[in-house]
Amino acid sequence: MGRSAKAASRLVARASLAQRNEALVAIGDALADQRAVILEANAADVASGQEAGLDAALLDRLALTPQRLDALADGLAQVAALPDPIGEIRDSKTMPSGIDVGTMRVPLGVIAIIYESRPNVTVDAASLCLKSGNAVILRGGSEAIHSNTALGEVLAMGLSRAGLPAAAAQVVPMVDREAVGTLLTLAESIDLVVPRGGKGLIERVSVESRIPVLKHLDGICHVYIDNDADPAKALPIVINAKTHRFGTCNTMETLLVAEGQAHLLPDMVAALQVKGVEVRGCPLSRAAAPAITVDAQDADWSTEYLAPILSVRVVADVEEAMAHIAQYGSDHTESIVTENPDTAARFLREVDSSSVMHNASTRFADGFEYGLGAEIGISTDKLHARGPVGLEGLTSRKYIVRGDGHIRQ
Amino acid sequence: MGRSAKAASRLVARASLAQRNEALVAIGDALADQRAVILEANAADVASGQEAGLDAALLDRLALTPQRLDALADGLAQVAALPDPIGEIRDSKTMPSGIDVGTMRVPLGVIAIIYESRPNVTVDAASLCLKSGNAVILRGGSEAIHSNTALGEVLAMGLSRAGLPAAAAQVVPMVDREAVGTLLTLAESIDLVVPRGGKGLIERVSVESRIPVLKHLDGICHVYIDNDADPAKALPIVINAKTHRFGTCNTMETLLVAEGQAHLLPDMVAALQVKGVEVRGCPLSRAAAPAITVDAQDADWSTEYLAPILSVRVVADVEEAMAHIAQYGSDHTESIVTENPDTAARFLREVDSSSVMHNASTRFADGFEYGLGAEIGISTDKLHARGPVGLEGLTSRKYIVRGDGHIRQ
Repeated sequence: MGRSAKAASRLVARASLAQRNEALVAIGDALADQRAVILEANAADVASGQEAGLDAALLDRLALTPQRLDALADGLAQVAALPDPIGEIRDSKTMPSGIDVGTMRVPLGVIAIIYESRPNVTVDAASLCLKSGNAVILRGGSEAIHSNTALGEVLAMGLSRAGLPAAAAQVVPMVDREAVGTLLTLAESIDLVVPRGGKGLIERVSVESRIPVLKHLDGICHVYIDNDADPAKALPIVINAKTHRFGTCNTMETLLVAEGQAHLLPDMVAALQVKGVEVRGCPLSRAAAPAITVDAQDADWSTEYLAPILSVRVVADVEEAMAHIAQYGSDHTESIVTENPDTAARFLREVDSSSVMHNASTRFADGFEYGLGAEIGISTDKLHARGPVGLEGLTSRKYIVRGDGHIRQ
Repeated sequence: MGRSAKAASRLVARASLAQRNEALVAIGDALADQRAVILEANAADVASGQEAGLDAALLDRLALTPQRLDALADGLAQVAALPDPIGEIRDSKTMPSGIDVGTMRVPLGVIAIIYESRPNVTVDAASLCLKSGNAVILRGGSEAIHSNTALGEVLAMGLSRAGLPAAAAQVVPMVDREAVGTLLTLAESIDLVVPRGGKGLIERVSVESRIPVLKHLDGICHVYIDNDADPAKALPIVINAKTHRFGTCNTMETLLVAEGQAHLLPDMVAALQVKGVEVRGCPLSRAAAPAITVDAQDADWSTEYLAPILSVRVVADVEEAMAHIAQYGSDHTESIVTENPDTAARFLREVDSSSVMHNASTRFADGFEYGLGAEIGISTDKLHARGPVGLEGLTSRKYIVRGDGHIRQ
């Protein structure tokens, strides 16, 4: 599979934008043609999942419905409509020697996506890889094997109709865990691994992989309410960052409040409790807001709850807030609420996270909100891509030098 | 060392541009103040090297002279004069939600430089790391230990005078090979490893490292003379790409000539032989140019000679040239000579090397020639930096989001 993916990747890389987009449209058509087959395969997976006692959340993510298939088709059309992420020569400038030097974005080659039992990822991730001129190897959770196999057929049909090799998007047919281990050793064939799922999956992939991994492990995001914060901005940002969705990686897990703003805590805590949030506080925050009835333990500061729980700590100032973030944060997303431009500039400069915000909810850390048009994942590493990763994160660049017979003196 | 470097990296990252530049200037001053000490330490290394029977080329690279120290001081002043590679918010744009999204370049953290017995690298590499807000751990060849220790003192003096911690630039004091192995496991402390030296060193570092490595293994660069080439451009480019310097990674090692241009070979070969180049040819090139008296073996196509030797092959057209490059090349630098814009565009697009050129000598593949202002190395990998790597390759970026109380709907 690795070798055929590598060979196919060269053909996808050479394909014109029109041909790559044609493949995406043809995959959308095949998705419609094969709807009955896909739903039947998915029903078999769901039935096995029910027998195996999967919980309701997992079964929900496993299930495909006509509406979800429509959403996949819409996603394909949207990705087809995005501008070409490769091939254009940018930043061209003439050097003193007379040569023109520019850069061109190029595909990475072969991307492996390792994910859990969400069959929609099969189509979503494949569309981003193909659009950016890459081949893709898809390894989904074993509970979704029938769905993914049916979707793999759909990908192959679409590619063939556009004159591209089916090996450009392959679903791993084996369900055993060892298949992942083998995949992660194929450094000659695979250029980048993108794990999508829970922390356990991502940790396993990171530790075992001999191939670069695009990942974030935790999203322990902080909002810091500065001494110079505008309370009218602070409250909505806190509520949104915590309660807009509880299970996402850009949800606030710890609220830091400057001493001078501790008087805001009772209203904030009341509003959070109305939304069903359990608040765990440090002694100073409990003193300021008696409605906080749970002591925050040391472990709370480094926990990604992914649940309606929030830890709250009162700090002296931005300095102490940044020290807390440096010690306990996960380099994902942090936001400062302040009207003081110098304090904001310092926070934006010195906090070493993949997204740093001023007077905005951490929930904005997202490829679509950043205008990337798509998102393959979020990276908290510093090499290659960082933060929400769109199509450009699936590309590299090369230098393009144009002369007219120029030689080096 | 790793832990103190990590702690120091946070202070360097926060330091203003003025403070980082002050450190570079102060290192230059210390280099002048300590000249006698450095030359004495270097004399001891050179004497040991002579006793140990090092060859003349190695001894030359090991030796520091007043002129070479002047060149190091000039280099420091030049790096100080470069614009700040970090801290500026770029590409800021307002999204439909109302938030402003931009990016800011940030230091990587701690860079380890592993190099052979060229003590000037100690100062050159440290200056680039410090300018870009990183801390650096320097591990040079054991033959240069006294020189590097003296230069390490100079780095410490300069940092101290600028109010920065000496731990921001540390020379590894151990000379045993195991020290490198240990260094390469410190993934918690070190963010990037840059090996500089021969292929053996780079291969060892690549295989052993648990930390990302910025590297290129080979520079098997090609020039392809297309059927539509202008002979008046082809000859100077061939001569320059092969003979400007023999030992550099961007030197041409294989010349590919389209059938229709094989009649140019006798003149080219004569000009190369005048410059002392041994030419090894395929049967067709030997038939076209009887002055080629050596048969190219299969191993020639994948050999980086780093010497006055060139392999020559006659190919049918650009298609066969690109197939040869894909099979035998090292993804470093390739150039096409042609007057046909479509053929040039195809070559620039489809050849998957870190630099691809049209009507220019491969010798231009260089950070200074590309206007990067400096070069820490050349990367032929696709992740993170690619091609000649300047200060930007020692940085990452983070997203900067600015709102005015914005929450996600």
